[in-house]
Amino acid sequence: MDAAHVKALFFDVFGTLVDWRSGVAGAAQAILEPRGIALDWIAFADAWRDQYQPAMEAVRSGVFPYAKLDVLHRRTLQKILPSFGLQTLKETELDRLTLAWHQLDTWPDVQAGLGRLRRRYLIAPVSNGNTSLICDLARRNDLRWDAVLGADYARAFKPMSEVYLAAADAFNLRPGQCMMCAAHSSDLKAAAANGLSTAYISRPQERPGFSESVAAISVDIHAASLLDLAEQLGA
Amino acid sequence: MDAAHVKALFFDVFGTLVDWRSGVAGAAQAILEPRGIALDWIAFADAWRDQYQPAMEAVRSGVFPYAKLDVLHRRTLQKILPSFGLQTLKETELDRLTLAWHQLDTWPDVQAGLGRLRRRYLIAPVSNGNTSLICDLARRNDLRWDAVLGADYARAFKPMSEVYLAAADAFNLRPGQCMMCAAHSSDLKAAAANGLSTAYISRPQERPGFSESVAAISVDIHAASLLDLAEQLGA
Repeated sequence: MDAAHVKALFFDVFGTLVDWRSGVAGAAQAILEPRGIALDWIAFADAWRDQYQPAMEAVRSGVFPYAKLDVLHRRTLQKILPSFGLQTLKETELDRLTLAWHQLDTWPDVQAGLGRLRRRYLIAPVSNGNTSLICDLARRNDLRWDAVLGADYARAFKPMSEVYLAAADAFNLRPGQCMMCAAHSSDLKAAAANGLSTAYISRPQERPGFSESVAAISVDIHAASLLDLAEQLGA
Repeated sequence: MDAAHVKALFFDVFGTLVDWRSGVAGAAQAILEPRGIALDWIAFADAWRDQYQPAMEAVRSGVFPYAKLDVLHRRTLQKILPSFGLQTLKETELDRLTLAWHQLDTWPDVQAGLGRLRRRYLIAPVSNGNTSLICDLARRNDLRWDAVLGADYARAFKPMSEVYLAAADAFNLRPGQCMMCAAHSSDLKAAAANGLSTAYISRPQERPGFSESVAAISVDIHAASLLDLAEQLGA
C-alpha cells in the first residue's frame, strides 16, 4: 500500500501493546495471595475483562454518562466478586485491584518498535483506557508518546466515530493521514469507516483460543509485531 | 512550603517555556522577507499577540464556540494584516504564517529543567495552545511530556476553572496534588482559586517593559527558571 500520506500512527493499547491478561492476573495475585486467598488468577482476569465491552456499551448507548475506564473497571470488579468468593474485600483493596490495569507490561517488541516508528511518525495511543492509566503504562514501559489521545480526549469509547476523528483533529490531520494500529478487527473496521488507514498487529497470545490471529477484514498492513510494522513502513 | 503532596506539575507554555516573541518575529521574517516585504518583525509579533486574549475572551464569554488556538491565530492574523500593509498575502501564506506559533524555541533552562522535574513528577503542558501546536513544540525542543493537557483537552481556555480541573482529573489527582507553573500571575491566580499549588517562573525577557518579573499575587514557589524550580523542589 501507499503509506506516503500517513503522518500519524494511532495505537490500541490493551492486547495490542500490553499483555493485560497475565498482568492483571499477576497484580491480583500479588494483592490477594498475602491475604490467604487462592483462586485461578487468569480466570479472574478473563472474567473482569469480559465485563469490559458491556460496561462501555452502557455508556455508548447513553444509559450512563461518560466515565473514565478506571471507574468502569471499579464498577465491573464489584460485579465479579461473588463468582470468586471475594465479597468481603475492603474498599481500599478494591481500589488497589482496580489499579492492576495501570501495571501492565508491553509485549517484547513494543518499546523498540514505537521508538523506530516515532522517528518517522507522530504516535499516540488511541485507547479506551483513561489518561492516567495510559500515562502509568507509558512510565512503566518507557514509551514516549507525542500525545495521549483516545477515550478521555473524545469523552467517548471506541468504536464510536468521534474517538478516531478527535484524534486526527488533535494532530491537525485529516483521517486519511492517520493509521489505526490494532490487534482487533472491530477497532480497525470502525477506523476504516471513518477514513483512517489500518494496520493489523497479530497478537494471538492476547488470550489464546479466543483472540484473532489474522484480520477478519481487509486492512492496509498486516504485521506480526511493531518491529514488523516499522519494517513494512520503512521506519 | 510543603510540596510533598504535589504529584504533578502543569506548565504554561507561551512565555513560560517558549520565547513566542522572537520566534514569531523570526518565522514571519523567514516567510515574508523573500517576497520583498520589510517590516518591524517584533512589532508584528506583538500586534498578533495583542489579539490573543480578546480572541479567547470571545470564546470564554460564549460569543463563539470553542475553537483551537490555530483557528484563533488565523482569525486574528487576518485582523492585523492592514496595519502592516499585508492585505495581499495569499491564503497559503497566511496558513504558513499561522504555523509560526508551532516553531518556537524554549528558553535555555527548559529542556534540562523539565528533564529533572520529570524524574520526580508527572509533567504536562496546561496551555491555551492546541494539541498539535504543543506537540510540534515538544518535538522541536525535545520535551518529553506525560500527557498533553490544557485547552483542547478541556475544550475551554484558561483561566476558566475547567481547564485546571480537567488536567488534575486526567491524572486521577485532586487539584491540591497539582502545581501550576507559569510566568503570569493571572494564570496562577485562577489555578490557586481552583485549589492547585502555584509556582511563579520569572520571565521578564518575554516582552521587556511589558512582562511581569515578580508575582503580583502570593505563590507557593517563586523561581528564576525551571532549574531553580527543580532545585527548590529537590528534583
